[in-house]
Amino acid sequence: MARKNVGHGPRTLMLATASSLILSGLLLAGPASAQKAEPKAEKASAAAAVSWEDILNDQNTDKDVLMYGMGIKAQRYSGLDKINTKNVSLLKPRWSFSFGDEKQRGQEGQALVHDGVIYITASYSRIFALDAKTGKKLWSFSARLPDDIRPCCDVVSRGAAIYNGKIYFGALDASMYALDAKTGKVVWSKKFDDHAAGYAYTGAPNIIKDKKTGKVVLIHGNSGDEFGAQGKLYGRDPETGEEIWMRPLVEGHMGRLSGKDSTTTGDAKAPSWPNDKDGKKVEAWNHGGGAPWQTGVYDEKTNTFVIGTGNPAPWNHHYRSGPGGDWKPYDSLYTSGQIYIDPSNGEPVGFFQHTPNDAWDYSGNNEIILFDMEKDGKIMRLGAHADRNGFFFLTDTDKLAARDGQISKQTALVAAYPFVRDITWATGWDLKTGRPIEVEGQRPPAPEEGQAKGKSIKVTPNFLGGKNWNPMSYSQATGLFYIPSNDWTEDYWTENVTYKAGSAYLGQGFRIQRKFDTHVGALRALDPKTGKIVWEHLEPMPLWAGTMTTKGGLVFTGTSDGYVKAFDAKNGKQLWAFQTGSGVVSVPSTWEMDGKQYIGISSGYGGAVPLWGGDMADQTKLVSQGGSFWVFELPTDTASAQ
Amino acid sequence: MARKNVGHGPRTLMLATASSLILSGLLLAGPASAQKAEPKAEKASAAAAVSWEDILNDQNTDKDVLMYGMGIKAQRYSGLDKINTKNVSLLKPRWSFSFGDEKQRGQEGQALVHDGVIYITASYSRIFALDAKTGKKLWSFSARLPDDIRPCCDVVSRGAAIYNGKIYFGALDASMYALDAKTGKVVWSKKFDDHAAGYAYTGAPNIIKDKKTGKVVLIHGNSGDEFGAQGKLYGRDPETGEEIWMRPLVEGHMGRLSGKDSTTTGDAKAPSWPNDKDGKKVEAWNHGGGAPWQTGVYDEKTNTFVIGTGNPAPWNHHYRSGPGGDWKPYDSLYTSGQIYIDPSNGEPVGFFQHTPNDAWDYSGNNEIILFDMEKDGKIMRLGAHADRNGFFFLTDTDKLAARDGQISKQTALVAAYPFVRDITWATGWDLKTGRPIEVEGQRPPAPEEGQAKGKSIKVTPNFLGGKNWNPMSYSQATGLFYIPSNDWTEDYWTENVTYKAGSAYLGQGFRIQRKFDTHVGALRALDPKTGKIVWEHLEPMPLWAGTMTTKGGLVFTGTSDGYVKAFDAKNGKQLWAFQTGSGVVSVPSTWEMDGKQYIGISSGYGGAVPLWGGDMADQTKLVSQGGSFWVFELPTDTASAQ
Repeated sequence: MARKNVGHGPRTLMLATASSLILSGLLLAGPASAQKAEPKAEKASAAAAVSWEDILNDQNTDKDVLMYGMGIKAQRYSGLDKINTKNVSLLKPRWSFSFGDEKQRGQEGQALVHDGVIYITASYSRIFALDAKTGKKLWSFSARLPDDIRPCCDVVSRGAAIYNGKIYFGALDASMYALDAKTGKVVWSKKFDDHAAGYAYTGAPNIIKDKKTGKVVLIHGNSGDEFGAQGKLYGRDPETGEEIWMRPLVEGHMGRLSGKDSTTTGDAKAPSWPNDKDGKKVEAWNHGGGAPWQTGVYDEKTNTFVIGTGNPAPWNHHYRSGPGGDWKPYDSLYTSGQIYIDPSNGEPVGFFQHTPNDAWDYSGNNEIILFDMEKDGKIMRLGAHADRNGFFFLTDTDKLAARDGQISKQTALVAAYPFVRDITWATGWDLKTGRPIEVEGQRPPAPEEGQAKGKSIKVTPNFLGGKNWNPMSYSQATGLFYIPSNDWTEDYWTENVTYKAGSAYLGQGFRIQRKFDTHVGALRALDPKTGKIVWEHLEPMPLWAGTMTTKGGLVFTGTSDGYVKAFDAKNGKQLWAFQTGSGVVSVPSTWEMDGKQYIGISSGYGGAVPLWGGDMADQTKLVSQGGSFWVFELPTDTASAQ
Repeated sequence: MARKNVGHGPRTLMLATASSLILSGLLLAGPASAQKAEPKAEKASAAAAVSWEDILNDQNTDKDVLMYGMGIKAQRYSGLDKINTKNVSLLKPRWSFSFGDEKQRGQEGQALVHDGVIYITASYSRIFALDAKTGKKLWSFSARLPDDIRPCCDVVSRGAAIYNGKIYFGALDASMYALDAKTGKVVWSKKFDDHAAGYAYTGAPNIIKDKKTGKVVLIHGNSGDEFGAQGKLYGRDPETGEEIWMRPLVEGHMGRLSGKDSTTTGDAKAPSWPNDKDGKKVEAWNHGGGAPWQTGVYDEKTNTFVIGTGNPAPWNHHYRSGPGGDWKPYDSLYTSGQIYIDPSNGEPVGFFQHTPNDAWDYSGNNEIILFDMEKDGKIMRLGAHADRNGFFFLTDTDKLAARDGQISKQTALVAAYPFVRDITWATGWDLKTGRPIEVEGQRPPAPEEGQAKGKSIKVTPNFLGGKNWNPMSYSQATGLFYIPSNDWTEDYWTENVTYKAGSAYLGQGFRIQRKFDTHVGALRALDPKTGKIVWEHLEPMPLWAGTMTTKGGLVFTGTSDGYVKAFDAKNGKQLWAFQTGSGVVSVPSTWEMDGKQYIGISSGYGGAVPLWGGDMADQTKLVSQGGSFWVFELPTDTASAQ
């Protein structure tokens, strides 16, 4: 076509083409999976040269948010009180930012804030640097995603890490990126596993400084248990991305250190996994699960890294039990628990299992918050964890971190409190053995001979859990934990399954169901000294956003029907709400800038509920998709203009 | 697969499938082009039984917005003054709503409001009914769009009409829908032309009551001039969608009345179009353009419907001129002008051409605002129109509406004022002849023998115009027009072209360019009595949002870099701005509810600029796409909570 020869007006001449491109959504957005670092706008991030000391001190600095968890102990507690119970009702949006690109879906990210710049991850492995004052985009980066990625639970990204001028951020194709914090340009990237087999990354990585070597280490895991992934944890040089160590989380699998085989995880013979008739390990062991897909926490005192491990694969526990369904000797280590790791070499030093031989996909990934609690006149250093299985665990950090040659330390359990209603699978916990008191008949039975599926049973909580990934918070002011929990149940049955790379590896079927007419979601304040629920706030839809609490006496969270809300941390009274137009399933953070306190949170419905949630997926069909970041403030023009 | 047989858990069993569906964006959103009316939520719109009297009175009622243009004269003036120059700085979002579906792009809609329900159209031919108080979705409808639609200028929808319990709304595949206002269910739909040939619909249709027959008529046009569409206007029975009349807008084409040939438009021999060597009309005449793709206005006194007509097709005027490029005898009627139509039968009764034999794609579609002005001690009934060609026209409504047997009435011109800087194509207007004083050498010359393109010339304004579709407003309080204008230029050249259905039919190439370092957009207040620009506010990016003005002394509009802004109508001082996160290219409206005034506007960047805008398209690459509706209010909790 002659018109193609004209040099000046490429867009000019593409009318017919443009029209079809419009429909495929490509023209403005660029190729749907294009990797791009857009040029930064006029304002450059001044420094972003965050040091380890800055990170270590994050909890105590109000002007930045330097890590997922808002502080080294991941308490999500801010010392800011300019926004407080007295004035929070006045809170209004300062600005909003659209992630754009005709890509919406679940926005589960928590923002980092440094030097006037907000770093926020978004769906489809994107990250944006925004001017904190105006919401103006400084740069954005969108990972190039292959067509055959296999995210189990929506195309989410939960956050990033910042250190020494770089932003660390993982993508759905099981790769990790280091981006220049000022420009968004890729400094390095590492593809660490096979996305087509179900490996992915959705969490926020950790930056820690190993006291022994004096080296800063980037630590991240993987996800993919629903596809039979092998759960692995990686320690990397944050400057180059080179692997320092790799730790598999299935007992008996071989680790790596400095590029060479190191040690097996636990017993090389993996007694917690049964052998098959041929004397070899059961097929399930080869895959195993245990993927650490959330963010860990670093215990500085003992120089130990702690992270939750995922469900065993497959879900169907009969594949991980002995003949005749004998599951009791087989805990499926080190899945569905919390593991303590030596960051120098990736060696496991302690493990507490939340659900031995997990038959319910309860997983163990939920965050661990470190805090101190007085018990019997003594200050105990504890890890707090609200599990999908419905129990809130307090474990002894020092015991679990002790280099005593033992890994499994169920006796590190200090307390296990139910935080949702009517748990059916266990009546409680034996504090002596550190093991659950299981209810007979709550493990889905194997299919009868010749049947495709087993008898269906009703289990509470369902596999999405009494609480899922969305993090709770701990208030240093009230001493309470604020748990975004859900009361729901499910029909549950086993099915036969064989492993096939890239296919679901569950062996279980389900239908998630409503349990109460009154609510599904319940924001609960739990007193760790007594296990009592001090107050609860009920929500019609599942809670899928994290919580944050402040010295201002507030708890912030979001709801699936689009609200960002603030509650009185003492009594749960709802003090403020704002409708953002799409479901809020992200994690709030707060910071101070020029003497003012701001609240930042993403809006954009998605995540596991609409994909897996049965009745609740139906309930949330009316929720619009979205993709935006919101900043709220107390308006100052109120007084001056009146 | 055995698992497929399990009845209970469809989502359960689709993990691998779900994962790939996630990526194609289908699972939550439903098929990308699925036609669906989601069930209404608990609150039903109480009535929506809007009468003709309600529409006629829309300008004077504060509690609703019943038509595009916010009143029968399309002045976009509200008598509300609760939000005013003194307190507008306090304006804050009340709620936001995300259009969702992983569909973003240009949101150019203006909301209708009735009985506590907001009806807002969105990109990809969608419409939403929202609870005006909470932003909760009551229903939504998404037209089923074929893959081969040909929207020239993004997948926009500018609005809807409401009447007698139904919402009228057109789609990009050249179809018109009547939806039940309470449920969103389709009452009727009419496909009126071939979308694959470039026919589409993006405007808001009109509802008028024909005084002669006493019948209410739904009037709508089409778009597609860039594909050589034949511009046509349709009158329909709003209850059934049946065509009453059809009026083509190219001289000599045959109209329809009650399903039969009626009259040709103007002279059957079409003397304003040249004949070819063979004595037949030139090929261009068969297509002709003139598409009336915006919304018209109804002059109740004379029972006449007025609407702007599109550019002639092709753009290259040599195809519409006599031998040797003799264009002067050939006006390409009835394109690039404003046509007055008898709503009883669709007969044209008057026409004023803004750009005779338009060589620049100036089109004539921009809205016509009806207003009264005192001139020489006499009240004149005028139509005001700010054209893409850079001139602001005042025309005599009574002359143009007179049934005097004449159609072309260039002498109805009262005034023609330039409203952008440095217009190059004409020095002004001859008020006696009603024709422009053209500048020699500003019509792009034909290619020299053997050349593929003609010599490039520089023309101001460029074809996107001194003002495009985004409507201006007229204040009854200040007597000024508020014009969202742009100062920009272009390189322009001709090319050879032959008509091919569904392909661009331009015959012209271009590169749109910046003209001033200081700005592209300029919000201008024009005094119709003098033609003077009373004030102007400059913007770095093109202005692509409409304006609205209020008795509160304010002008509202949006900017391509994401702000909604309010200005002092008297002096142009910016009094308020809010950043919505994506470019604002829509049309504000305002209403009162429970004694409070609200402002509503969509955010979502797109439209013609990023597709056609050359330098400006590059400039706007940093703007995120979006898709949301915003409602602003003066917070009342300010006082009570403090």
